[in-house]
Amino acid sequence: MKVIILGSGTSQGVPVIGCKCETCSSSNPKDKRLRTSAYIETNEGVKLLIDTSIDFRQQMLKNKIDNLDAVLYTHHHVDHINGMDDLRQITQRYDKFIDLYANETTVEEMKISFRYVFNEELIKYKSVPLVNFHVIKNEMLRIKNVDIIPVECMHGNLKIFGYRINNFAYITDCSAISDNELKKLEGLKVLVINALRIRPHPTHFNLQEAIEISKRVKPKRTFFTHLTHDILHDKINSTLPKRIELAYDGLEFNI
Amino acid sequence: MKVIILGSGTSQGVPVIGCKCETCSSSNPKDKRLRTSAYIETNEGVKLLIDTSIDFRQQMLKNKIDNLDAVLYTHHHVDHINGMDDLRQITQRYDKFIDLYANETTVEEMKISFRYVFNEELIKYKSVPLVNFHVIKNEMLRIKNVDIIPVECMHGNLKIFGYRINNFAYITDCSAISDNELKKLEGLKVLVINALRIRPHPTHFNLQEAIEISKRVKPKRTFFTHLTHDILHDKINSTLPKRIELAYDGLEFNI
Repeated sequence: MKVIILGSGTSQGVPVIGCKCETCSSSNPKDKRLRTSAYIETNEGVKLLIDTSIDFRQQMLKNKIDNLDAVLYTHHHVDHINGMDDLRQITQRYDKFIDLYANETTVEEMKISFRYVFNEELIKYKSVPLVNFHVIKNEMLRIKNVDIIPVECMHGNLKIFGYRINNFAYITDCSAISDNELKKLEGLKVLVINALRIRPHPTHFNLQEAIEISKRVKPKRTFFTHLTHDILHDKINSTLPKRIELAYDGLEFNI
Repeated sequence: MKVIILGSGTSQGVPVIGCKCETCSSSNPKDKRLRTSAYIETNEGVKLLIDTSIDFRQQMLKNKIDNLDAVLYTHHHVDHINGMDDLRQITQRYDKFIDLYANETTVEEMKISFRYVFNEELIKYKSVPLVNFHVIKNEMLRIKNVDIIPVECMHGNLKIFGYRINNFAYITDCSAISDNELKKLEGLKVLVINALRIRPHPTHFNLQEAIEISKRVKPKRTFFTHLTHDILHDKINSTLPKRIELAYDGLEFNI
């Protein structure tokens, strides 16, 4: 199974518009962060996306990805959903519908934000993304022979989903996770989890909290994502405990 | 007055995801088109944006624009509005609200799509873009001493606005314009207008229709924008009548 981190940045991306800080001025490509999203391709060729970030088109082009079987959504915040319209480029080309999976709140909110995709006239002319929304519960689902385990996390007061696929798990925008849900993360080869910044934040793990989760879960490797410009890649990466690294845009690994 | 074309592409942008056509494969930077948007800076330093395209953040970074006084919206389709959340990067930095101007339908639709910006708790913490929506009618408005004349156009069945500022006018996504509204375009130095592609399209002018409008209005220069991958820059540009050119991302001119 191949995983590509399409975006490792927080909701604003890095650099932040107008910011002159060390990270935003850095010429290190690892300090250029699009909004959080990941691509997963199984050995059987099933192509899954986690979140259609607002940078979705750029991410598809940069990584030469031109088809998807399904999208798994973590939650409905705009940095995670606002690129959805560009799925149209795929649904037009392949003349097909794409299945979108998310918890109930996410589907409800997305149906409001993208209310035009239900216009039958526009569907007929394929001038909207052709998508099927599926509400998923906190129980295993199967998409084209791939078993996917939702992992319920709290993002402040909002219930959101991370996902485990085989021995890979991806969690973003999490600020708390119950012991029961943590059990789903046992025996991982790779955990991707959010680590916003150095200082604490009410609705996202900071660096220290993410390190603690990684130490509890004990995956073989951990990558931190959803990073703000407080995180200068080389400087912070070198301070992390063994087997924990910062993710960056374009990071690709096989599991 | 300075104008920068931030995006000259149709709703999908160019290249289209997965497309191998001559334009999408072109290495000419003028064939790389972000979604349609323009920046206007008056001699007195008033900074106006037309539409917060889905590529808004990228466009601000590329063109080193870090502040705005107001946004004028043409209409509510997602390619023209979906980058609005990234205004937050400006409203946080400058601790201010940004005024958004649009016709009634656009404001109504944007208030649904961006319903979270009215959450008072989030406004208090500046974690949403701080924006004031203003419904404008088809009559002159003044923003910080800049006189702006809306120009009502039809985008299929939808009434949308183009804008005239001094002797510059910007019209996108137009498929028809009345004789009365065309009169507002007399005496222009520069007209930017949409010209989707070669073939006709039900809701956008094609190349021939845009040429006809330009010939009627007789501006000193005309630039075509909102271009699909049917338009290979160098090939098509060389066929255009005198004083008509294709726009491209980053095109800058003074009026």
